[in-house]
Amino acid sequence: MPSFKPLLVVAGVGKGGGTGAATARAFAKEGYSIALIARGADSLKSLEDELRASGVEATAFPVTSYEHVSLRSAFQAIRNRYPAQQYSLRAALYNASHWVRKPFLEITPEDIQAITETSINGGFAFAKEVISEYKNNEIDNTDGLGKRGVLIFTGATASVRGNTTTSAFAAGKFALRALSQSLAKEFGKDNIHVSHAIVDGAIVTPQGREQFNNPPIYDSQDQSLTPEGISAAYVYLAKQPRSAWTWELDLRPAHEKW
Amino acid sequence: MPSFKPLLVVAGVGKGGGTGAATARAFAKEGYSIALIARGADSLKSLEDELRASGVEATAFPVTSYEHVSLRSAFQAIRNRYPAQQYSLRAALYNASHWVRKPFLEITPEDIQAITETSINGGFAFAKEVISEYKNNEIDNTDGLGKRGVLIFTGATASVRGNTTTSAFAAGKFALRALSQSLAKEFGKDNIHVSHAIVDGAIVTPQGREQFNNPPIYDSQDQSLTPEGISAAYVYLAKQPRSAWTWELDLRPAHEKW
Amino acid sequence: MPSFKPLLVVAGVGKGGGTGAATARAFAKEGYSIALIARGADSLKSLEDELRASGVEATAFPVTSYEHVSLRSAFQAIRNRYPAQQYSLRAALYNASHWVRKPFLEITPEDIQAITETSINGGFAFAKEVISEYKNNEIDNTDGLGKRGVLIFTGATASVRGNTTTSAFAAGKFALRALSQSLAKEFGKDNIHVSHAIVDGAIVTPQGREQFNNPPIYDSQDQSLTPEGISAAYVYLAKQPRSAWTWELDLRPAHEKW
Amino acid sequence: MPSFKPLLVVAGVGKGGGTGAATARAFAKEGYSIALIARGADSLKSLEDELRASGVEATAFPVTSYEHVSLRSAFQAIRNRYPAQQYSLRAALYNASHWVRKPFLEITPEDIQAITETSINGGFAFAKEVISEYKNNEIDNTDGLGKRGVLIFTGATASVRGNTTTSAFAAGKFALRALSQSLAKEFGKDNIHVSHAIVDGAIVTPQGREQFNNPPIYDSQDQSLTPEGISAAYVYLAKQPRSAWTWELDLRPAHEKW
Repeated sequence: MPSFKPLLVVAGVGKGGGTGAATARAFAKEGYSIALIARGADSLKSLEDELRASGVEATAFPVTSYEHVSLRSAFQAIRNRYPAQQYSLRAALYNASHWVRKPFLEITPEDIQAITETSINGGFAFAKEVISEYKNNEIDNTDGLGKRGVLIFTGATASVRGNTTTSAFAAGKFALRALSQSLAKEFGKDNIHVSHAIVDGAIVTPQGREQFNNPPIYDSQDQSLTPEGISAAYVYLAKQPRSAWTWELDLRPAHEKW
Repeated sequence: MPSFKPLLVVAGVGKGGGTGAATARAFAKEGYSIALIARGADSLKSLEDELRASGVEATAFPVTSYEHVSLRSAFQAIRNRYPAQQYSLRAALYNASHWVRKPFLEITPEDIQAITETSINGGFAFAKEVISEYKNNEIDNTDGLGKRGVLIFTGATASVRGNTTTSAFAAGKFALRALSQSLAKEFGKDNIHVSHAIVDGAIVTPQGREQFNNPPIYDSQDQSLTPEGISAAYVYLAKQPRSAWTWELDLRPAHEKW
Repeated sequence: MPSFKPLLVVAGVGKGGGTGAATARAFAKEGYSIALIARGADSLKSLEDELRASGVEATAFPVTSYEHVSLRSAFQAIRNRYPAQQYSLRAALYNASHWVRKPFLEITPEDIQAITETSINGGFAFAKEVISEYKNNEIDNTDGLGKRGVLIFTGATASVRGNTTTSAFAAGKFALRALSQSLAKEFGKDNIHVSHAIVDGAIVTPQGREQFNNPPIYDSQDQSLTPEGISAAYVYLAKQPRSAWTWELDLRPAHEKW
Repeated sequence: MPSFKPLLVVAGVGKGGGTGAATARAFAKEGYSIALIARGADSLKSLEDELRASGVEATAFPVTSYEHVSLRSAFQAIRNRYPAQQYSLRAALYNASHWVRKPFLEITPEDIQAITETSINGGFAFAKEVISEYKNNEIDNTDGLGKRGVLIFTGATASVRGNTTTSAFAAGKFALRALSQSLAKEFGKDNIHVSHAIVDGAIVTPQGREQFNNPPIYDSQDQSLTPEGISAAYVYLAKQPRSAWTWELDLRPAHEKW
């Protein structure tokens, strides 16, 4: 057992029914305290409430944007709330995403700005805060882990393939994947583990149920991804021992066509 | 808990100190009975002995080659030893490999034949036996798994990159990766889970210690892969729930340059 | 022979000794009029002068940035200078790039902003102007070409691989590649040909000679890329017939290690 | 102009209406003498006749298989017919392929054997003969080419993606791609240029017209590949100068969905 209280920070929690929230719950079960970052203060608060109700030390850090300055402030607040004497940031998930699916000629400068904010500026700023923290951590030798910390990025099919209506979305997701690969290579030697998950398929969320009118595939775990299935993979990545780390894996439902 | 006795078959066990053997041990701990296939009857016997000594139902099925006919006979023998009334083949690892590293002009027809036998003929024959078995399995609904079985292939850096001295080795490994991807796509809809691991780095084995005179990186789990680290990933793949299956992941030591 | 005067627009001309300038010269030899876009008004003027001195209709359109508004204005000016009654935009090269090579923790928000401007905002804005023009073109049936126009993006090794000091550069280049692939898929059916070149190796430029003190590899075409070699590939892409178009090719010197 | 009579060798000529034959015709127009290798003696003879009728030095070298021994004999015969004092092997295309599209469980050992013969054994044996010849060539400095020779492999979509009915075909094509990449890396430093073309789409051939009952897409060069379009790309690759060589490009019709 490690001698510190491990902390997870998640950016991108959405409405609390998706991958970010499921990851918070899953790491909480593993004994982590939780710092939640997202733009929607309300849903962030309700996830904080839920986690606290089950005895988890969880705190919401709402941001107005994923720009550098906002994320910097959020991490300041996190360090105040979870001081280094007691807590140790050990896991981080960058799950923020701006979904755009449009014919290219209809993409606006605002769309591109939103993509840049979430997939590039936010990704770089989040990674900078996290990696800087990790550099100060001791290596965790529990169970042969050998980590200062794990940093996970949520990717998508669009991380590896541009398509007819995904020029903007894919540009952001390709960029984030490049960042994750560069970081994995640069900081592996410092025992910092960086991973990227290619999530390929529809993710079941309460939001999606509402928006798409409860599509039938949502009722089949063969045909859609559950946030719990994804977060289980993230917990697994956090537990990989130093001798066999994964940078990238794909995740898709059993029946997905690809 | 499933109502059947799960069985793992591993092809490619080497001298018993590598990935195949570690995978046998790891699945045995998960409650699997074990069928071991390899060309070296002696080392196969000693792994069988070791597993039995720890209470595992393990049986060695030595083969003279990885050609179709040999593997077919081995699977006949496996079915006799582990009849379907009691046992259910649920996990399979194709770990056989023929390592060649040579300048292209020195590669002989025999080298190519050895590569073809292990990476193509053997891979196809093994997969055919395994998939045919899986098609007859009930879906396992334990823990939401949703599988008829999992089939894992051990890949290497050479699975995704040819290089100056790996033309023959890479040809075989690329081919095996193509097979694994095709199978994952074809049989996902039947709830058969097919995975491919890109093992990138030196694997610590007793054989390697001897052959390379106990290289210093072997003493650092930051710099070399342990068979146990790899087999832990394979156990994880076997446990992935139907909503989030991985076809491919990479595995490398924390300090590996890539 | 086509009945229109073909026009090439190049964005990213640098000091006039690199890929952008060589491409202008090469297409000029093929009978194209030339529109030059770049941020350095001076070097742009001197390339304009050079091309005009050899009888080419060339015009410089300096921009203050690669942001959407600037590129939009530049294209307005291009349409005024080369009106559609006489000229037809048929080829376009997006060659703008901001080169950063730094340890991740030293990357500043300004670096990321510069990458975003050139590789994302500029790429999307340039493509939007070009594709919009192409949509109005007749299909060119000269020599079985079957094109409304060709749009080429200059990529780099960092387009397909992040590395220890290229997190920011690679993020931009991955994004641009995603854009090019998405466009190729979306507009192929409109007979608009979109290509991406992975330039892998050092490019010989007068600037580089000065900056790196005339490195020996510059004197060997086996070891370094000439802008002329690259632009020859771009002319070839422009001439590919509709039945066999290339989205992506790599370009590297004969002796390059990769 | 080079001082030697350049020779092209093509393996895989099919019925004389496809890529191999078109490449022979295209290089003949560039002044090459032609050596034709294929398993069908009759169609080989008729292509030889056709080329000779247009004044080309062309010779058919039928083989009984693509196994090592057969190809070795064919190259002996080629060296006798085109002696090194006069002729110089400068271009080579490995175009042999065995097409199988089947559900995995229906693939026979014979299918795998046929794939192995054409895509692995044949590819390695052909490359060995060609590279050995090239090693003895002078570097061609005509037009700054800087080559001892070019060796091209015809790939397919299945070279980079396995799919539900292509496990065997993709295994062979992946393997051939691995070979081509390994050779490109190993022999670039010897000024030997190795390329791989990913042909993605239906190729119009007389055979195909007959077999598929003259499908409508064959009449549209937007929707199908012409052998001439492909061979034009191969001629281009042969002419790339040493400073900017392509290992891999894709080729697809303008309207192809991918």
